[in-house]
Amino acid sequence: MRIVVLAGGIGGARFLRGLKAATPDADITVIGNTGDDIHLFGLKVCPDLDTVMYTLGGGINEDQGWGRSDETFQVKSELAAYGVGPEWFGLGDRDFATHIVRTQMLGAGYPLSAVTDALCDRWQPGVRLIPMSDDRVETHVAVELEGERRAVHFQEYWVRLRASVDALAVVPVGAEQAKPAPGVLEAIAAADVVLFPPSNPVVSVGTILSVPGIREAIADAGVPVVGLSPIVGDAPVRGMADKMLAAVGVESSAAAVAEHYGSGLLDGWLVDTADGATVERVEAAGIRCRAVPLMMTDLDATAEMARAALALAEEVRT
Amino acid sequence: MRIVVLAGGIGGARFLRGLKAATPDADITVIGNTGDDIHLFGLKVCPDLDTVMYTLGGGINEDQGWGRSDETFQVKSELAAYGVGPEWFGLGDRDFATHIVRTQMLGAGYPLSAVTDALCDRWQPGVRLIPMSDDRVETHVAVELEGERRAVHFQEYWVRLRASVDALAVVPVGAEQAKPAPGVLEAIAAADVVLFPPSNPVVSVGTILSVPGIREAIADAGVPVVGLSPIVGDAPVRGMADKMLAAVGVESSAAAVAEHYGSGLLDGWLVDTADGATVERVEAAGIRCRAVPLMMTDLDATAEMARAALALAEEVRT
Repeated sequence: MRIVVLAGGIGGARFLRGLKAATPDADITVIGNTGDDIHLFGLKVCPDLDTVMYTLGGGINEDQGWGRSDETFQVKSELAAYGVGPEWFGLGDRDFATHIVRTQMLGAGYPLSAVTDALCDRWQPGVRLIPMSDDRVETHVAVELEGERRAVHFQEYWVRLRASVDALAVVPVGAEQAKPAPGVLEAIAAADVVLFPPSNPVVSVGTILSVPGIREAIADAGVPVVGLSPIVGDAPVRGMADKMLAAVGVESSAAAVAEHYGSGLLDGWLVDTADGATVERVEAAGIRCRAVPLMMTDLDATAEMARAALALAEEVRT
Repeated sequence: MRIVVLAGGIGGARFLRGLKAATPDADITVIGNTGDDIHLFGLKVCPDLDTVMYTLGGGINEDQGWGRSDETFQVKSELAAYGVGPEWFGLGDRDFATHIVRTQMLGAGYPLSAVTDALCDRWQPGVRLIPMSDDRVETHVAVELEGERRAVHFQEYWVRLRASVDALAVVPVGAEQAKPAPGVLEAIAAADVVLFPPSNPVVSVGTILSVPGIREAIADAGVPVVGLSPIVGDAPVRGMADKMLAAVGVESSAAAVAEHYGSGLLDGWLVDTADGATVERVEAAGIRCRAVPLMMTDLDATAEMARAALALAEEVRT
């Protein structure tokens, strides 16, 4: 079975670990969000791609869900001693090596997709990980700070400001001109099923869908497209997805996210058992819906979620 | 007193520490060798500038004479895990931060001299450290490897090959087109004395002198120019200067190095007491010569060497 997954960071990576456990023989292609990418200290950092790669490759810091295990912070503290920031972005020494290799390869002329392939040669994530685009797309968030409206990089909003102010708008800068990376459209066209993990529907899955051609390819693939709600009981399972949803005028509920994707894209939707009452509303929107436990508390629970998503895919296929 | 010192790495840096101790009120400008500079992992590494900066700023690894104290090697081991080399160049995590800051500033358009100034803002070396040139100069060494003649970067010859094969030629590639960095010629013109520390006469001091205008400015400054022999008893005090001298056809002796600089450049020359018998030969070449202990065993001994150099400078001035 060929499965295509649109993944953001932590939520997407953990779901993928469950999916691999549930379907060890599947051929999984992950289309990774690069709207979170940021240049720090002259280095190209791709947080979502790295979170997927480290998580599936066994190098992730399990407690925090991002960054490397057994990490140290000598480089960062030295940079601070030079007065070079930002200090709010926590790059560790092991992590720095990834960004150094990536930046060197990009500087040598390789596209991000080829660089990602090369990094995965080491990590062997057991999936094919492709950035959504080799072109630069950068998610900006419009906020009001000290009475002035400004646009900040998504990482500045998320990490520095910790989403403490309202997001007035979310713009994937550069998306309109971006092309899907080599292999993205081909993987979608060849897929037996497309999954949206419980990733942020605006700045993760939404950003991937903003690259012209990707949404259309998924809608036209003629295969089941099934998503898992990142919202449980009206609150995001993790992260601050509610802030992002508010910015695009979507209420923070499992049903509203399904309606936001829409029946033109989504065939099936899993909500948590806590949101069983919302199944009817989702189905009224033309999307098949089931309520199952959606907390990724451990690998078994996550694998069970993946099985439920694949079962729903088979259900909508027939 | 305004003192200009032409410095390579370890020998120059340690001498400078003694000079500062001997003349705490002097205004010292160091013209640093950049022929050893190398791009590693996409980062600009300036070994000699950093050795001077770390040594005078209190951040040096005292035992090895280069690199940072309390160093760790997480980045390097991760790069190796990615299969990205070279592995023979020992960059530590703390050291990496310096190269990251430097590379970022160079990428932003600052010349190396301005970047060096900025790095020294942190280290406060107590001297003005100027790279010999903002232009790229790269010392290459011609060698015969496996029957074939090739040119290798100086660091590859020095660090990877450990000078284990003969150097057939030493070429400061790019020197002919290089201009002295801002402040270099002005510092020489304003100097009361110019010192050549016991640095490598070919690949350290020699490379600095290969930048058009620097040798002439020193010769024309009309102030005492005094050097200290890096060769004691026909062998280099440290490093492999004899290999470099052989490449330019100079015998490995204190007297031969003085003759190599020549009386057109050098007014005074200090040899070690072990080479007392050679004083006459140096003086016959028109260079005032004294034999004093030249082993930089500790700060006091090194300060004493600096005092002897300054005393010889006063002697040749009159």
